[in-house]
Amino acid sequence: MAFSATSPVYDNSFLLKRLSNGRKDLFRAPFHQAKLVPMRIHATHVEELIPRSQNPSLGRFQFDEYMSSKAEKVNKALDEAVPLKHPQKIHEAMRYSLLAGGKRVRPVLCIASCELVGGDESSAMPMACAMEMIHTMSLIHDDLPCMDNDDLRRGKPTNHKVYGEETAILAGDALLSLAFEHVAARTLNVSPSRIVQALAELGSAVGAAGLVAGQVVDIDSEGKDVSLKELEYIHVHKTAKLLEASVVCGAIMGGGSVIDTERVRKYARCVGLLFQVVDDILDVTKSSAELGKTAGKDLATNKATYPRLMGIDKAKKFAIELVDQAIGEIDCFDASKAAPLYYLANYIANRQN
Amino acid sequence: MAFSATSPVYDNSFLLKRLSNGRKDLFRAPFHQAKLVPMRIHATHVEELIPRSQNPSLGRFQFDEYMSSKAEKVNKALDEAVPLKHPQKIHEAMRYSLLAGGKRVRPVLCIASCELVGGDESSAMPMACAMEMIHTMSLIHDDLPCMDNDDLRRGKPTNHKVYGEETAILAGDALLSLAFEHVAARTLNVSPSRIVQALAELGSAVGAAGLVAGQVVDIDSEGKDVSLKELEYIHVHKTAKLLEASVVCGAIMGGGSVIDTERVRKYARCVGLLFQVVDDILDVTKSSAELGKTAGKDLATNKATYPRLMGIDKAKKFAIELVDQAIGEIDCFDASKAAPLYYLANYIANRQN
Repeated sequence: MAFSATSPVYDNSFLLKRLSNGRKDLFRAPFHQAKLVPMRIHATHVEELIPRSQNPSLGRFQFDEYMSSKAEKVNKALDEAVPLKHPQKIHEAMRYSLLAGGKRVRPVLCIASCELVGGDESSAMPMACAMEMIHTMSLIHDDLPCMDNDDLRRGKPTNHKVYGEETAILAGDALLSLAFEHVAARTLNVSPSRIVQALAELGSAVGAAGLVAGQVVDIDSEGKDVSLKELEYIHVHKTAKLLEASVVCGAIMGGGSVIDTERVRKYARCVGLLFQVVDDILDVTKSSAELGKTAGKDLATNKATYPRLMGIDKAKKFAIELVDQAIGEIDCFDASKAAPLYYLANYIANRQN
Repeated sequence: MAFSATSPVYDNSFLLKRLSNGRKDLFRAPFHQAKLVPMRIHATHVEELIPRSQNPSLGRFQFDEYMSSKAEKVNKALDEAVPLKHPQKIHEAMRYSLLAGGKRVRPVLCIASCELVGGDESSAMPMACAMEMIHTMSLIHDDLPCMDNDDLRRGKPTNHKVYGEETAILAGDALLSLAFEHVAARTLNVSPSRIVQALAELGSAVGAAGLVAGQVVDIDSEGKDVSLKELEYIHVHKTAKLLEASVVCGAIMGGGSVIDTERVRKYARCVGLLFQVVDDILDVTKSSAELGKTAGKDLATNKATYPRLMGIDKAKKFAIELVDQAIGEIDCFDASKAAPLYYLANYIANRQN
């Protein structure tokens, strides 16, 4: 997996400025109280969100190498977690979507958080894989004809297009179940009480109070007028909850204190929302080929998005504020250990697909 | 919940005879080596499987009361586990299928197994609920148009008929996720290491090596010639694995030793297969109204069933052998504590829907 071709611009001066800033309360000004701004969408580049560094070598963390090294290990662990065995078809379908590339943002967040609080990568690896399994499950089910009816995902035909609807549904079910099983059966050198705590956290991020809640409200909102408050609800649940669980479960597996775990939770909430804001911006500014999935779909379906509800410029400003808040939450940690999470927030803000 | 109207015949003499029998090795003569018998199906009553007791009062265990008391507690716990909250629609859909009645065989097996090894009912209750959540999820997804395309389940319109396909898929996902979360978050007075062990067991029963594997092979086998070996594979995975997990996880939560847990696992394997053999017999001998789901469907779709492949008489004999084997596996336990599992095997053999 190579990140060099599409790697974002890493803004060190921005990060150093944040390091010297005081902490800010999360969502001090609730997003849903922001003013609605009618807008017309102009194509732009998301990398412009964060100004380029004036001195790119200053305190540069080798983020490309970090990401590609972690993603490679995650890919190897995922490959081993779902071997191609009988019944062949279901394992093929699971592997097709699970090993289709992807940035592995959730697993890397999980590992980075584990290491931030002093844990070893190996302690978080089964949980990191679980995050990707659940994320993949949600994509497979979201793409189904009765849901988003998408033909393209990560640049390839969607799971149901290749294996049929029934196998796609079952592949999702199997991945969801495997996620929990994998953590319970494969996590080593972590106390069982921490594993149980992390599994409860994981479950709450996925179910009817998490990812599924976001998806249900999202489906219900299609073609309707949606307020910013409702939009925030959708994305906090559909996207941010699993990113939050990735970071929080990483800290639990790494032996983090309650205080440390709550700190990274706040970081994750900002990053989770940031992820969706950027997703919405990319949908209106990129082509299908650039995204690896159908672009312009939100606009075509009149879906509630941040650019549509607040204007593209305000959506970008909001993204910058979220990076700012996220980084503020982990200021208290040792800078060398916190570097991956600093850069991950920036990376998510600048991602191109 | 009342069992009196449809309660099976409890054959005490049969049970007492079994108690005096020696143990038999599980599947000593592998089922798939049995001879294929061409057959014509005749309607019959499954309660004829086990001859009526000559002395019904002898050592009679109050099984009706036991089942209805346990089922009532399980129903209460399930009701509390899925409260009707925002987003209303998904919780409604989950509750619609989860609280639609059903015999609660899996939860009761789980609790009975926990109590058999000396545990308290409360230790197994979250796991008992998880079994019903997963069973319900599998029914919701199996009934979908792209799967079995069923309109009727437990005497009511299927989930997707009421809430739409997309909500039915998500309700299944949420129930599956909640099952794991509920055990991790709600199990009290059980060591975390036992909870982790039970969750790994649960996961393996559901995923691509369990329930999903059975479903995939079942779908692939429709309209094809299926051998008894393949049929056994389908049912061991589609039905028996979750029943096995119910019993095994109950024993784990109850503090059972490794030897005790493996004993009840063997019991459960017989009961699991028994469950499917009886299901197949009921499909050809009962009406839709009696079953609460579409009857005669296996025959209409030319599906592989035990009656079709081995003849109805041999299928009934096989069911009796399985009860015999199951009961033999728990002979070593105190008779008063083992009574619920003895009667549960008999109950499953004699169930009417």
